[in-house]
Amino acid sequence: MSQTRIPHLHAVILAGGSGTRFWPLSRELSPKQFVSIFGGVSLITQAVARVATLADDGAVHVLTNERLLDELRGHLKAQPLLEGVDIDYLAEPVPRNTAPAIALGAAYLLGIDPDALMVVLPSDHLLQDGEAWERTLRVAAALAQEDRLVTLGLTPTYPETGYGYIRMGEKIPGHTDEGIAGHEVAAFVEKPDRSRAEQFLAEGSHLWNSGMLVARASVVLTELEKAGAEDIAATARAVAALPPSAWTGDEARQMFSALPAVPFDKAALERSHSVAVVPCDLAWSDVGSLLALGSIAPPDERGNVLVGDVVDVDSHDSIVYSADRLVATLGVADLLVVDTTDATLVAPKARAQDVRLVVDALKARGAPEVIESRSSVRPWGSWTLLVKGPGFQVKTIEVLPHHRLSLQSHAHRSEHWIVVEGRALVQLDGQTTERLPNESTYIPIGAKHRLGNPGDTTLKIVEVAVGEYLGEDDIVRYEDDWAR
Amino acid sequence: MSQTRIPHLHAVILAGGSGTRFWPLSRELSPKQFVSIFGGVSLITQAVARVATLADDGAVHVLTNERLLDELRGHLKAQPLLEGVDIDYLAEPVPRNTAPAIALGAAYLLGIDPDALMVVLPSDHLLQDGEAWERTLRVAAALAQEDRLVTLGLTPTYPETGYGYIRMGEKIPGHTDEGIAGHEVAAFVEKPDRSRAEQFLAEGSHLWNSGMLVARASVVLTELEKAGAEDIAATARAVAALPPSAWTGDEARQMFSALPAVPFDKAALERSHSVAVVPCDLAWSDVGSLLALGSIAPPDERGNVLVGDVVDVDSHDSIVYSADRLVATLGVADLLVVDTTDATLVAPKARAQDVRLVVDALKARGAPEVIESRSSVRPWGSWTLLVKGPGFQVKTIEVLPHHRLSLQSHAHRSEHWIVVEGRALVQLDGQTTERLPNESTYIPIGAKHRLGNPGDTTLKIVEVAVGEYLGEDDIVRYEDDWAR
Repeated sequence: MSQTRIPHLHAVILAGGSGTRFWPLSRELSPKQFVSIFGGVSLITQAVARVATLADDGAVHVLTNERLLDELRGHLKAQPLLEGVDIDYLAEPVPRNTAPAIALGAAYLLGIDPDALMVVLPSDHLLQDGEAWERTLRVAAALAQEDRLVTLGLTPTYPETGYGYIRMGEKIPGHTDEGIAGHEVAAFVEKPDRSRAEQFLAEGSHLWNSGMLVARASVVLTELEKAGAEDIAATARAVAALPPSAWTGDEARQMFSALPAVPFDKAALERSHSVAVVPCDLAWSDVGSLLALGSIAPPDERGNVLVGDVVDVDSHDSIVYSADRLVATLGVADLLVVDTTDATLVAPKARAQDVRLVVDALKARGAPEVIESRSSVRPWGSWTLLVKGPGFQVKTIEVLPHHRLSLQSHAHRSEHWIVVEGRALVQLDGQTTERLPNESTYIPIGAKHRLGNPGDTTLKIVEVAVGEYLGEDDIVRYEDDWAR
Repeated sequence: MSQTRIPHLHAVILAGGSGTRFWPLSRELSPKQFVSIFGGVSLITQAVARVATLADDGAVHVLTNERLLDELRGHLKAQPLLEGVDIDYLAEPVPRNTAPAIALGAAYLLGIDPDALMVVLPSDHLLQDGEAWERTLRVAAALAQEDRLVTLGLTPTYPETGYGYIRMGEKIPGHTDEGIAGHEVAAFVEKPDRSRAEQFLAEGSHLWNSGMLVARASVVLTELEKAGAEDIAATARAVAALPPSAWTGDEARQMFSALPAVPFDKAALERSHSVAVVPCDLAWSDVGSLLALGSIAPPDERGNVLVGDVVDVDSHDSIVYSADRLVATLGVADLLVVDTTDATLVAPKARAQDVRLVVDALKARGAPEVIESRSSVRPWGSWTLLVKGPGFQVKTIEVLPHHRLSLQSHAHRSEHWIVVEGRALVQLDGQTTERLPNESTYIPIGAKHRLGNPGDTTLKIVEVAVGEYLGEDDIVRYEDDWAR
């Protein structure tokens, strides 16, 4: 693949997400884009990797919300695939759908580069990358330089009724590459019924609307203005004039809250006279429901997709996914079973789209299992919660070779560390000591401490924390390799 | 209830069991009789309690197998309901069905009391106790004193096709108590088909064969001999002549292995001319499959029985049981979901009888989840395994007030103890120290150590064990309050 970057190209990766459709694999603090079961790395990692070598150096911007910012930074910094990729983390003031978010991204980029060209990518889709993707993006970028809002449309492979479609118009001359070419947009089409979707597929003139956009940043704002969304453009410019750290402050929140929550398609694309679509003949999935799990392993002879520690007797056409526990199924049909460390979901496959009803029911009862998962990937490694009781909790903590946590202290908890694998370097109130397997350390309340792994293999410790309050937010960081 | 004991009455509680029909709630090392979900205490505890105040003092004998002996002793010693009940633990040489087991019990009792009257009870059934039960047992005991083999038959409440039936003959004069009376046995009837079962129910002349027997110990052996099972009687006498500790030795095993594995019904009852049946009008269930879970809570308005941390949306006629994790069901019907700490089972209710197929499949792949559960009740409290990794494992350990573990040592593992609740008394190589919450202790390999709870509240510690071998059998006990 060519490694030539596209001049002025900035990637804006939309990484909000509520975690409702993919529960229990997704959680509010670990939404769908964190899920690592497709191809072994998370969807957000795949999204970043897709553009990291094509965008300008340092021009990968991830736009998320305040709540997810830390999790996201920790998650992406831990990805070997993204080593050396410099990511700019941004949090939008409040979620207001994609029009305000894309406008804010555009206004922000204009402050960096008046000629900025932006590619907007959702972070919760699967997309085949490689040469064809790169060529498609280059054709779209060239069209965008002519002041068009360029959308990417996927060639349908079956009559999906859950997506919006784009009817292609005339081919736009020039800017073609091995059959990839821009087209005028004849119409944006709402989700069709089955027979229309079949017709679209047969005709070959309709594309799935993917939500991917390529455009000049200045054009994004002027087209919003022309389309009557002056408020969105103006607010985006006003918020972007603030430093990003102030975007989640009261002033910016107030401004953003006044905007309508509206998708960019409705606010600009469907009203603009300067749009184009580039058909992508790429494998794509919006990973719209847990049924997507059915694609991660080949079905057995009875049509079951069984992933993880699963034992089945006599079932057929079912999807059974287990993250780490044993799941046994006996004689079930067309069923979906998704099992994680702390929660299990059982539903007929036909009800996969209704998982949000379960999430709503869980929220109504205040279930922690909709908010957090039991493990968290950090830039230095990961931790897994084993048990939480009154006044104590137990975790395993893994530290990557030659990585270390921040120098920190806790106001409300003591910690007991027992090394069970690898070598630990323990800094405690200025003293540094080494700890080997079967050795322990006590970290009193208030002590400045730091855990590091000086070795070439993973360090694993068991941490028993004792205290009245055990929240993750009881932490003061004094030094951090990850600038948290 | 009268507390008058029945003279010479010994209870022999049959407590083997393979743990296959109730998986994942039962395991090989924690079979169905350990399950505590019916009425909050285990079935075996209920079985012992049912006879403890009626049998002679010290005359409750639990007959199990060698593998379960320790677990069973630990389990029963931890039951507050059985405080003060002196239980005699026996292990049969090898499992050979009920005829050899009951014969061995009879021969053993004859060595204690030539006039012993025995009541044989399965330990994996539910039975309503109270006054009516006591009166029934007294009537049966009186009949048994006349040298009959007396079975207890349950009044059917629906046309069950899975049980054997007993057709009642003439009422036996005398020995009645408020309508409870013995009957001759007209016939033992194999499991009937549906229409015959309905006929039995309508006629009122048939009882369910419960497996409960009352008889003089000497009569058990002589009736076996008369029925042609001289080998069983003779072997039972020979094994019983050995001290119980030798029953699981090579000699006894060899003798017992030579016996046919045959139920007492076939070997004696169905051939004897001295039998009687006492109808019991008591609530009873053989807890024959996981469907029994459907009786432990009232169904919701859609016919679901939901037990534990379960959230349901739109399901009907399903049983969802969760021991400690969150289980969410969405739109399922007639489904059975059973969730435990380490394993989940999902099956249509109609397949509940086939759970053994799952157990067979698990055994074939060597899954540890068929053998052990992740927690164990001990005479001093309990432990729960949180995680087991290469070279280490983490448990929480709870010690009851004023209880202590054995004085012990381990050849292959060190232990780190962190107190998280209550007060610990730690004995380590002769030194005793107190440990309070947030304090820790290190137990090196080979050190003689003992953990005690001197307080009035539960002691809870987290134990991190580190070592090459972490099996429960790496233990040398020097002193033990429970004579293990």
